[in-house]
Amino acid sequence: MLSMSSAGSLVLLVLASTALVPCDCVTYQPNWASIDSRPLPAWFDEAKLGIFINWGVYSVPSFYSEWFWFYWQGHSTEANSPRPQVVEFMQKNYRPNFTYADFARDLTAEFFQPDVWASIFEASGAKYIVFDAKHHEGYTLWPSKHSFNWNSMDVGPNRDLVGEMAAAMRKNNKVKFGIYHSMFEWFNPLYLQDKANNYTTQDFVFGKTMPELYELVTKYQPEVIWSDGDWEAPDVYWNSTNFIAWLYNDSPVKDTVVTNDRWGKGVVCRHGGFLTCTDRYNPGVKQDRKFENAMTLDTNSWGFRRDATLDGYLTIEKLINTLVITVSCGGNLLVNVAPTKYGTIAPIYEERLRDLGQWLQVNGEAIYSSHPWTYQNDTLNPDVWYTMKNTSGSKDVYAIVLKWPASGTLTLGAPSPGSDTAVTLLGYSGSFAFTGTGTRGMSITVPAIDVATIPCLWAWTFKLTNVAN
Amino acid sequence: MLSMSSAGSLVLLVLASTALVPCDCVTYQPNWASIDSRPLPAWFDEAKLGIFINWGVYSVPSFYSEWFWFYWQGHSTEANSPRPQVVEFMQKNYRPNFTYADFARDLTAEFFQPDVWASIFEASGAKYIVFDAKHHEGYTLWPSKHSFNWNSMDVGPNRDLVGEMAAAMRKNNKVKFGIYHSMFEWFNPLYLQDKANNYTTQDFVFGKTMPELYELVTKYQPEVIWSDGDWEAPDVYWNSTNFIAWLYNDSPVKDTVVTNDRWGKGVVCRHGGFLTCTDRYNPGVKQDRKFENAMTLDTNSWGFRRDATLDGYLTIEKLINTLVITVSCGGNLLVNVAPTKYGTIAPIYEERLRDLGQWLQVNGEAIYSSHPWTYQNDTLNPDVWYTMKNTSGSKDVYAIVLKWPASGTLTLGAPSPGSDTAVTLLGYSGSFAFTGTGTRGMSITVPAIDVATIPCLWAWTFKLTNVAN
Amino acid sequence: MLSMSSAGSLVLLVLASTALVPCDCVTYQPNWASIDSRPLPAWFDEAKLGIFINWGVYSVPSFYSEWFWFYWQGHSTEANSPRPQVVEFMQKNYRPNFTYADFARDLTAEFFQPDVWASIFEASGAKYIVFDAKHHEGYTLWPSKHSFNWNSMDVGPNRDLVGEMAAAMRKNNKVKFGIYHSMFEWFNPLYLQDKANNYTTQDFVFGKTMPELYELVTKYQPEVIWSDGDWEAPDVYWNSTNFIAWLYNDSPVKDTVVTNDRWGKGVVCRHGGFLTCTDRYNPGVKQDRKFENAMTLDTNSWGFRRDATLDGYLTIEKLINTLVITVSCGGNLLVNVAPTKYGTIAPIYEERLRDLGQWLQVNGEAIYSSHPWTYQNDTLNPDVWYTMKNTSGSKDVYAIVLKWPASGTLTLGAPSPGSDTAVTLLGYSGSFAFTGTGTRGMSITVPAIDVATIPCLWAWTFKLTNVAN
Amino acid sequence: MLSMSSAGSLVLLVLASTALVPCDCVTYQPNWASIDSRPLPAWFDEAKLGIFINWGVYSVPSFYSEWFWFYWQGHSTEANSPRPQVVEFMQKNYRPNFTYADFARDLTAEFFQPDVWASIFEASGAKYIVFDAKHHEGYTLWPSKHSFNWNSMDVGPNRDLVGEMAAAMRKNNKVKFGIYHSMFEWFNPLYLQDKANNYTTQDFVFGKTMPELYELVTKYQPEVIWSDGDWEAPDVYWNSTNFIAWLYNDSPVKDTVVTNDRWGKGVVCRHGGFLTCTDRYNPGVKQDRKFENAMTLDTNSWGFRRDATLDGYLTIEKLINTLVITVSCGGNLLVNVAPTKYGTIAPIYEERLRDLGQWLQVNGEAIYSSHPWTYQNDTLNPDVWYTMKNTSGSKDVYAIVLKWPASGTLTLGAPSPGSDTAVTLLGYSGSFAFTGTGTRGMSITVPAIDVATIPCLWAWTFKLTNVAN
Repeated sequence: MLSMSSAGSLVLLVLASTALVPCDCVTYQPNWASIDSRPLPAWFDEAKLGIFINWGVYSVPSFYSEWFWFYWQGHSTEANSPRPQVVEFMQKNYRPNFTYADFARDLTAEFFQPDVWASIFEASGAKYIVFDAKHHEGYTLWPSKHSFNWNSMDVGPNRDLVGEMAAAMRKNNKVKFGIYHSMFEWFNPLYLQDKANNYTTQDFVFGKTMPELYELVTKYQPEVIWSDGDWEAPDVYWNSTNFIAWLYNDSPVKDTVVTNDRWGKGVVCRHGGFLTCTDRYNPGVKQDRKFENAMTLDTNSWGFRRDATLDGYLTIEKLINTLVITVSCGGNLLVNVAPTKYGTIAPIYEERLRDLGQWLQVNGEAIYSSHPWTYQNDTLNPDVWYTMKNTSGSKDVYAIVLKWPASGTLTLGAPSPGSDTAVTLLGYSGSFAFTGTGTRGMSITVPAIDVATIPCLWAWTFKLTNVAN
Repeated sequence: MLSMSSAGSLVLLVLASTALVPCDCVTYQPNWASIDSRPLPAWFDEAKLGIFINWGVYSVPSFYSEWFWFYWQGHSTEANSPRPQVVEFMQKNYRPNFTYADFARDLTAEFFQPDVWASIFEASGAKYIVFDAKHHEGYTLWPSKHSFNWNSMDVGPNRDLVGEMAAAMRKNNKVKFGIYHSMFEWFNPLYLQDKANNYTTQDFVFGKTMPELYELVTKYQPEVIWSDGDWEAPDVYWNSTNFIAWLYNDSPVKDTVVTNDRWGKGVVCRHGGFLTCTDRYNPGVKQDRKFENAMTLDTNSWGFRRDATLDGYLTIEKLINTLVITVSCGGNLLVNVAPTKYGTIAPIYEERLRDLGQWLQVNGEAIYSSHPWTYQNDTLNPDVWYTMKNTSGSKDVYAIVLKWPASGTLTLGAPSPGSDTAVTLLGYSGSFAFTGTGTRGMSITVPAIDVATIPCLWAWTFKLTNVAN
Repeated sequence: MLSMSSAGSLVLLVLASTALVPCDCVTYQPNWASIDSRPLPAWFDEAKLGIFINWGVYSVPSFYSEWFWFYWQGHSTEANSPRPQVVEFMQKNYRPNFTYADFARDLTAEFFQPDVWASIFEASGAKYIVFDAKHHEGYTLWPSKHSFNWNSMDVGPNRDLVGEMAAAMRKNNKVKFGIYHSMFEWFNPLYLQDKANNYTTQDFVFGKTMPELYELVTKYQPEVIWSDGDWEAPDVYWNSTNFIAWLYNDSPVKDTVVTNDRWGKGVVCRHGGFLTCTDRYNPGVKQDRKFENAMTLDTNSWGFRRDATLDGYLTIEKLINTLVITVSCGGNLLVNVAPTKYGTIAPIYEERLRDLGQWLQVNGEAIYSSHPWTYQNDTLNPDVWYTMKNTSGSKDVYAIVLKWPASGTLTLGAPSPGSDTAVTLLGYSGSFAFTGTGTRGMSITVPAIDVATIPCLWAWTFKLTNVAN
Repeated sequence: MLSMSSAGSLVLLVLASTALVPCDCVTYQPNWASIDSRPLPAWFDEAKLGIFINWGVYSVPSFYSEWFWFYWQGHSTEANSPRPQVVEFMQKNYRPNFTYADFARDLTAEFFQPDVWASIFEASGAKYIVFDAKHHEGYTLWPSKHSFNWNSMDVGPNRDLVGEMAAAMRKNNKVKFGIYHSMFEWFNPLYLQDKANNYTTQDFVFGKTMPELYELVTKYQPEVIWSDGDWEAPDVYWNSTNFIAWLYNDSPVKDTVVTNDRWGKGVVCRHGGFLTCTDRYNPGVKQDRKFENAMTLDTNSWGFRRDATLDGYLTIEKLINTLVITVSCGGNLLVNVAPTKYGTIAPIYEERLRDLGQWLQVNGEAIYSSHPWTYQNDTLNPDVWYTMKNTSGSKDVYAIVLKWPASGTLTLGAPSPGSDTAVTLLGYSGSFAFTGTGTRGMSITVPAIDVATIPCLWAWTFKLTNVAN
């Protein structure tokens, strides 16, 4: 039948082709059991650190948060109803009839140099980025065929931001390129119509969501699909399992791509690739499945806030602590960066990222490709978190100390030292004396290392070679 | 199957319902033979005069013509390739990355008072308007569900321009409300994709064109559908006959609606409702089918041109001449008005319309509800055009004289006067002497009527009561 | 003494030099008796018709009137206090902190082609223009040295509008170039300070008004100085007589320049060059001194109003009537044209001007270089106004008839025909019979002239050759 | 004579009044010998640290530097000719006719909260600010009577930025309020005219510079007048000594105000109050007169640069080093902060300022109210700089160490310890052992202090109580 939307056609085509292709690999079925059975490509767990980039039309008002539109004009029946600050901001600074779409023209991006961004991301020690290709506002940062005049080529930058960013990341190929994509769009009338129909119709999904996702994957070959905006409707509505099955079986990134768990009401934290559960998910205990802690340097917003003051940003200490705890529990950290409407990464962001990268140059051994140990947080010392590696015959446990042991003694409750145990400090030469404390635990003698000599200033990794669990 | 676009669903629903409804009326089939068999609702032929309104994002640059976008950025493989004036206009007046969609924010429409417009239209003597709901740019002047953020509620006016205009026309109900709608959109990627597929796919039609047309008809109940932008693709691609069959059989305006002939390549001037053939179609000879001469007061553009000078506008004499010749040959005249981006009808337009209305107050008897006579242009006097009425037993032929007979004698070649023939001048008391001139033709003695006494200044109607063909 | 403003220096220099130059011509003194004694250069009275152009930052909001700023933010202690419509317009269409100076950027003037304007002015039959070089807002339409960043080169057009217009007028040299200049500036703090000092200080006059006037005259050599905005302060404050003495004695336009009477409180309608008395001054009776009736085609505003409708504009009939009455009483007519912010003269203005020009092509003989007759308005026929010429031995009286004598007889009460009297109609061949009616008055037999033959449509000039007073 | 500008009037008034007022204090004469004889008010030397704020219309393009306008359109005969980057920036991002004054509307300052700024300045440890009231562009950040429509009330913010900042600083009264003022204005035509006259005329000085300075002092009572933009013309042209004599004798801030040395060609680094000599003046040797090192955190610009990257900003280490060296040599440090057009201090600036403040909380004893010692830079250890205090009988020398003595021994060449000498570390309890090394010099034993215990991270003050020179 001809009268079918392109998304529908594409799906049919795909399903048909997958059925026909003989293959000695696994073919995933469009159900969660099958999808969940796919092993996560190893690179993702090894990476530990990614950069999230939230950029869009909300970067124009650049006020309150990336939910600006919804907080301004969202209906009061929602839990997230209009916020007085946002409404007042509009009243004070814009003419009465100004619309959200009117902002798009000012997303000028004139200073956007993707190579500069790429070099900052590389310097941060991150191994992948997740670039906001479309947020809940529906504006696509690439020239989507399905978002006529509401995309970055048609209005605002006059550039393919996704494409330029992808190309820049691939020049050095040190940091993988991934994309963020919102399933729903707050104010898209097709979505609202499906919603009013209690999701018994799928005009929005097959006219917008699916075509865009296929287009994104085919055109830009992202190695992360970070889905979001799914929570109001079931995965059946979103066609999620069909899409993921295609992604895993037949897409150009089928072997390397990872995806998350935001694919429909009830799915989050249960199915998909890695789990994100909630924003800023940092459980503090080891997780059975791979998870990611997506968090922000600006504690109030994922989008750039022009009026953010210093106290709104995480300190480097807090950032490193969060990385350490997250990785210790088996997670990746996804650090959000919010660019300006004119296409820059503000220096405060750059500073945090470069400081993080410097720290990782010293301590990366304890982070990248590490695994959770038997213990995460030390049983005695709450400022110590562990990671572990089994490499070349020896087993190394990394005790990352968030506060320097000023007393001269670092007491740990979890490790059991043995005869071949050695204790060193990453970035510092020489090893430290220690004593076992009964069946479990050890007491390490730590010298006062002056500020000129200490390898880093914010968290320190004591490497415990050959300790028992 | 659920995964179908709303347009498709709607069509199915409609087809299904039409099949089930028992009906003693005619049911039109989705083919031209059936559609062409429908009698044109009488009001349209009686109306004779309509007003066309072309308003859109092109009213923001308001330069060159409503094809501004295409002339600026259309591909050079097209006959209508980029025009140097338009390209230069952009270079001189806008930043290099400015896009067409960036203009939309400035379509402010702050002075748009639909009641004021309605009163001007009424004063012009027009009996219907055709309001540009969407031009080739794709911007919808109503909050279409299928044109997210590219419509007059989401960007620019923040108003439902179609809805406000429709409501204003219905207040007095003297002038019918119709809409103009472009099938294709120059730069819509879904259309361009279908086009690249040689119109074997219909993603654009079922994702955009059809849903919008159904939405427009259902929501605003226009009594004219003035289709356009059809010419690149066949009617089968456009789904035209299906739509028209629904329009004629089941739409809320099924009994009164008229439509034109621009429904697909090869269709124009052949099928549909009334014929438009070409822009400014004024054949000068009687037509077998009802036609409409859609023309402009600004001879260069359908959209408002800020830099238009007086010589670009038709004089009232030329406008009235065009009306007379068009009606004489069986056509309606559709006079285009181009509003400003801020929502006004420029005084030069208003003046022409009000002057036309004054003329019709005197001469309307020869225009409204008239029919073509045996002759249109007089056989001897090229400045005379005829209309005719059979009313209350007598047959009246109206000889409309475009140049006043300064000689004192009006010689006509076509009419054959009889014994009961009388000659009068509309708006003037008394009758004139005449003599027959052989088997055909008559010579009327016309006094010098001074400017204070003459009923109008631009074209004069001699009413010939009871003349033979 | 060094510490003196440039205006002061210039004045001193000028006075010094005039004192030293031996001269066989009259030297005017800086007092009204001397200034009033100067004969008005003949060209001005002969011209009869001028065009006023009001253009400025007020052309950007282009709403209500050229007093927009004052009506928006003027203090309520003034008679001209804030107008609700203007305040509301700003509230509805601009952000709360938008200022009047913020408008200036949008005075783009991109379509301003002074040659096109010049050709329209020539076609109108006008013999001079008065171009608004600076209105009460203080914005100068030339790059004044004394209005840094508040002039048309520094903000907005980036062009010398006065200079371009002057040059265009001089190409054909058919229409003289003059300027309008406002003495005061509503919101200039230097002016407000002088005002607060009860005009005992002159910081504004010698820092702004005088330097600008000298600059304008020296740089652009206008042949009309149309002063305005003088009424709040006495001429002594404004330094008016000193300036005019310089203008008449030593300026580059000393032999040809004319100026008006708005040079200080109490001066208007009493002193200076020609009298303007009030806006739209049309006394209807003969005046002892030369006067000018400055009036507008848009009856509500001197500046362009975007929302003006047709009924706001004078008809051509009313315009011609005003010209006739004004000239009959000894005045000149100064017809105001209000350009758009983008630099065009709207077609409705162009149409009135060209129609006026066409009328003058027929009737100019009765207007240009004419003089008031003994009578102005006829004693019997209120629709008849007279002008007169003594040329080549005969005395011609022109009876301009505003309503065509439909009765066939034109009865006049004022003229006394004699034996050598002849009556003709300008633009029409042949002469008309008449009879005297006692000692005074005559009755002219006027044929019915049809619309194709009559020389014009709006007012008709009966030329009475050789009639006594 | 009345026809004199207000500045001239004011000067005369002032001179007259000073001549008449009997006074037991010193009256300064308008010559440099007298002006230079005035003792600098003590607070200034004690303060050591100030904040410079550069904000203006240049903060709108916010590109390249605060000299944007000059680098864009300055004449090529100047040493500082147009810069390709700036010219290209305009070509890429603005319409061709865009002017510099057109930028002003976008200086929105909507987030400017002077109390927030004040709290940051207080936290930085600064004791005064110098707020840019007017830069070389001529735009005044207060509603000057002499800069109509080119000031922050008339165009852009619609606020009195100077006034709001002054009021905020006075709320807590912890940090004094000063202003920066440019004498010349690059493109002011009155200035350019005086310049063309080889500074033999002073229209600009008495029409603009002087009135504004008097207005600023009288209205806002700043305790610092930081003059600039003087260098093209001699002080006689600028009327500098007259102004300063008034400032010192009769102004409302006569007892407390300090001013700098930029008062005319040849004056800088020779006369006035404190010396600034050159931008970023950091001589590295003790100066005879009080000086100030005005420098920037963004090493490339005094105005905010939107595209500045992290490497453009000074690190906190470099900033503290600069403070230490400057104060050691007798100078004050004036740290520049560049706000955004929307009125915020970017977090990177805030971070540097707060870090500096934290450092001063530990080390302020060695900075505030200190004096240069006999030695500035240690004779042996190039990373050590000295300050000194004579307080309560003892003489304290502060050796500020820019690099931590990792060896455990701090060897100093300059001090001569005696029997009552003690060595401590500011912020650290206990005293350190040391040994004298011959007639001069000492060797201090410094323990390894771990990062948790050390009082600060960037530069450390060893207090040497009772050492001889």
